[in-house]
Amino acid sequence: MNEREILSNYVYQIVSALVASGVEKVVISPGSRSTPLAYAFASTKELEMHRQVDERAAAFYALGLAKATAKPVVLLCTSGTAAANYYPAIVEAKYARVPLIILTADRPHELREVGAPQTINQVRLYGENVKWSAEFPIPDNAPQTLPFIERHTVRAVNIATTAPFGPVHLNIPFREPLMIDFKEELPKSSYIKSYTNELTPSKQAIAEFTHILERTTNGMIIIGELPLGTDTNHVWNFIREVKWPVMIESLSNLRTEVPEDCQVYAISTYDALMKNERFKQNVRPQTVIRFGAQPVSKFLMQFIVQANPQSYIIIDEDPMYRDSTHMSTHFIHALPGEWLSEIELQHSVAEIEYVQFWKMADLLASDVIEKYSDYADDEGAMVQSLLANFEEEADIFVSSSMPIRDIDTFLLSTNRSVQIFANRGANGIDGVTSTALGFSNGRKMRKTYLLIGDLAFLHDTNAFIASRYQNCDLTVIVMNNDGGGIFSYLPQSKVEAHYEDLFGTPTELTFEQVASMYNMEYEKANTKAELINTLATNKQASLKLIEVFTDREENVTQHRLLWTRINEVIEQWLDSL
Amino acid sequence: MNEREILSNYVYQIVSALVASGVEKVVISPGSRSTPLAYAFASTKELEMHRQVDERAAAFYALGLAKATAKPVVLLCTSGTAAANYYPAIVEAKYARVPLIILTADRPHELREVGAPQTINQVRLYGENVKWSAEFPIPDNAPQTLPFIERHTVRAVNIATTAPFGPVHLNIPFREPLMIDFKEELPKSSYIKSYTNELTPSKQAIAEFTHILERTTNGMIIIGELPLGTDTNHVWNFIREVKWPVMIESLSNLRTEVPEDCQVYAISTYDALMKNERFKQNVRPQTVIRFGAQPVSKFLMQFIVQANPQSYIIIDEDPMYRDSTHMSTHFIHALPGEWLSEIELQHSVAEIEYVQFWKMADLLASDVIEKYSDYADDEGAMVQSLLANFEEEADIFVSSSMPIRDIDTFLLSTNRSVQIFANRGANGIDGVTSTALGFSNGRKMRKTYLLIGDLAFLHDTNAFIASRYQNCDLTVIVMNNDGGGIFSYLPQSKVEAHYEDLFGTPTELTFEQVASMYNMEYEKANTKAELINTLATNKQASLKLIEVFTDREENVTQHRLLWTRINEVIEQWLDSL
Repeated sequence: MNEREILSNYVYQIVSALVASGVEKVVISPGSRSTPLAYAFASTKELEMHRQVDERAAAFYALGLAKATAKPVVLLCTSGTAAANYYPAIVEAKYARVPLIILTADRPHELREVGAPQTINQVRLYGENVKWSAEFPIPDNAPQTLPFIERHTVRAVNIATTAPFGPVHLNIPFREPLMIDFKEELPKSSYIKSYTNELTPSKQAIAEFTHILERTTNGMIIIGELPLGTDTNHVWNFIREVKWPVMIESLSNLRTEVPEDCQVYAISTYDALMKNERFKQNVRPQTVIRFGAQPVSKFLMQFIVQANPQSYIIIDEDPMYRDSTHMSTHFIHALPGEWLSEIELQHSVAEIEYVQFWKMADLLASDVIEKYSDYADDEGAMVQSLLANFEEEADIFVSSSMPIRDIDTFLLSTNRSVQIFANRGANGIDGVTSTALGFSNGRKMRKTYLLIGDLAFLHDTNAFIASRYQNCDLTVIVMNNDGGGIFSYLPQSKVEAHYEDLFGTPTELTFEQVASMYNMEYEKANTKAELINTLATNKQASLKLIEVFTDREENVTQHRLLWTRINEVIEQWLDSL
Repeated sequence: MNEREILSNYVYQIVSALVASGVEKVVISPGSRSTPLAYAFASTKELEMHRQVDERAAAFYALGLAKATAKPVVLLCTSGTAAANYYPAIVEAKYARVPLIILTADRPHELREVGAPQTINQVRLYGENVKWSAEFPIPDNAPQTLPFIERHTVRAVNIATTAPFGPVHLNIPFREPLMIDFKEELPKSSYIKSYTNELTPSKQAIAEFTHILERTTNGMIIIGELPLGTDTNHVWNFIREVKWPVMIESLSNLRTEVPEDCQVYAISTYDALMKNERFKQNVRPQTVIRFGAQPVSKFLMQFIVQANPQSYIIIDEDPMYRDSTHMSTHFIHALPGEWLSEIELQHSVAEIEYVQFWKMADLLASDVIEKYSDYADDEGAMVQSLLANFEEEADIFVSSSMPIRDIDTFLLSTNRSVQIFANRGANGIDGVTSTALGFSNGRKMRKTYLLIGDLAFLHDTNAFIASRYQNCDLTVIVMNNDGGGIFSYLPQSKVEAHYEDLFGTPTELTFEQVASMYNMEYEKANTKAELINTLATNKQASLKLIEVFTDREENVTQHRLLWTRINEVIEQWLDSL
């Protein structure tokens, strides 16, 4: 075999293993050293190729694709700092548990650490932020090579898609020349299939868990963002069985499409309720069960610490289970799967008054929240108006910082099919737009909206380069309060010295030119009425940017007023009991 | 002491150690966890504060400041993916040997790896890409703490500024509350001073080195990009002493301001000359000495392999010395310092004909190159025209990929004070504009130009966010050939299938809107005449963007034609001998 045949067989063997392992999409950034794999991907009809020049944006875009499809997505870049640009999205993928298969083309060993151009030390480049990293051999014609790289590629996808999902890294060296022969058909494989584990607890664990449930009078469930691909029917079945109040985070996507018979358990306003000391005294739970990631609400977590429940049970697919309260008493290493539907309580001491008390408070708080837009015209009111006016079957991708907090406040339990997504692995404001674009392209059948602040938007305007290489469909709503709005809620906002320099950081930028540069429809709004109007215009535009001008001071004032009002209503109600 | 006093003393002790160690500039990205240090930096009059929201751009900006000043520059960001965004610039700083002091604020231990928000594993986040990384203790009032963190901060700066220069990382955890008391004066210190080493070879090494020089008839010197802060007088003194031809890379900044008596040795056109086989046969050196980074010219390096010199001596400040030819016979672990001026040959056998032969060829090639703009109007001709029309005392920051190659071709030996800088550690096209902006702000007394291609420019338009927080002065010349021009020189350009998708990657974008968004003067040019005119307009504008439209095909054709012409002239000359 000549060198070119060896190289061609090598790269198509990798592609074949990826396709056989369920990979459907690959995101490529242009480069030279990655040429053999780029050609193999581009020429493989089983794969959908996406492109993005900025590798940081490319990796977040791939993250969005993987979040939307709950399937592993491949990234490919050339050697050098290109690979380092993937790092922020890799870190997010690790903590958000999203399967990314990162392929970095590398120079061969003789060009590493010897001063050769565009060569850095790529072995274990991402440290502990990938679940696994392997260095592939230089293509050769040893009989071991193809079977080995095929199975190592399978292993990579297996690891990425075994709970907890996460990123894996393969570093693949190529010597020049880098040209390959195109193949019409992928090479056949002797490897047949992988069966990933569903992570079901043992019978003993279920028995002991059930025993606790059966003895609990006041139990509470907290549901954060669930693992990718979770069948939420099992979670609802479990809720039906235990009949406890459920604190439902917006990102769990259980606030929307709540089954009729479960609405009595569904609590959305806990963050506001947890600001009332008397209410908290009244609802101290005996047992708390938490599914998914820790919720956005800091007040809810502080309540757990204060309430000090007898049992605080964390169900998590990672033995490094998430619990920053350090109050957990039990850990169940499991995915929220079929075993939840199978749990049956022989008897129950759950007090119906407890769930009714919660639900009454939730209804009262919801009532105050629903009236918010009647008087307020700040970011919160904008978000509430948006939620009332989005398309019926929409997905909303939400930035970290204030947008996710507003969504979590203003999205009340509903039977509409609106779903909420965000990058909450590390809660960064980086790469949000890219993730939303990738997400949108992975969920082609639904309309995607992005809700984002001005600093997060500014951080990732390069996201739109992707729209030059593939069709993108996204309506972006930028809340432009000219700087970092979330800091206004922190103690430093009361100290004038250095505040605007270090925290407010106003840029005085607006984004009409970004829209123009990338051929996006552009609308602006100063009030919620104007905002709603902009949603209706140019509905056929695939890329649309709505810039909403808001005021940081006003946002804080109105939010605090809302909490005060809810507090008053809850106080009156508690007085009346 | 209360918590707030403890925290205040802790952060000002770090600042005090940084200032005492020679740090003058700090680049801050906004965030919450970094509040105590951000306040301490902002309130310290000895420090110049720079700001940038995008941490990737911030780190490249800091790299540019450090390159311009040859002094360590501090970076500060908050916890989470913010820190991961520094990675590309850190990798570049490692390979380009630039002292960056990276401070990442972190959450305290009890919030790490427990699912707390905006918390990632920051300990050793940058792996082997920093020279040193340390985890600082949580602020407390133990008597050991302040003396320890002060000296550990001194150590960090020492390591970053010891040859080879490079990045270091301090991870600093803070518990809430994060407010400090502002101090007017930095705390006094018992630590007094560090003396870094000049890395001078031993007497024995110099004796053996001198012995080789004395026995060499045909010797050749290659000078790449030199360590930051190199006094080039020592290099010129050495050249005067040995009287060998010197291949001077544009990035060494020895092509400009060449001393009158050294012009006979200075060769700029080696890349073109090395394309002629007969010439190469005639100039095979007995001894080669290389200073600094490996040069951009691939042909020069291939010539060394082919010539197989008896002695190939690398002088490098890193024991991991740079030599991708694997032909080196001697390695001298040293900085190019005073010891070079002190070298005296007792006798010399250097053949005057050898240097004259080189110089004649260089003059012939230079003559052809100088006439290039008379007929060509491609990117090369644009670059040549620019070089002839830049301000007298200009710095030119040059992007990787084609711009640096064009500069290296068209910048001939001159006594003008034009200096060339680039990110050649890892040769990335990322962060170039940010580096140029930081560089420009570090060299306030000279005008800085940035020469960059469209993809590299697009990669880092966020660089200009910096201009919203501090005055920036930069004239950017974008060569817009709508995609990846360098790939046109590679074999894949001859294969039509997938070429534009994977390598050309045209975006059809122009950058007028970027200029408008950031209040930059905008000019466009289609010919070199138009380009020169744009240089003259609005000279008072601090930020200026000149977009030059060129054609990828035409660039390759004209460059190849130039090499052919030089080859013909050299052939004629060799025939005439």
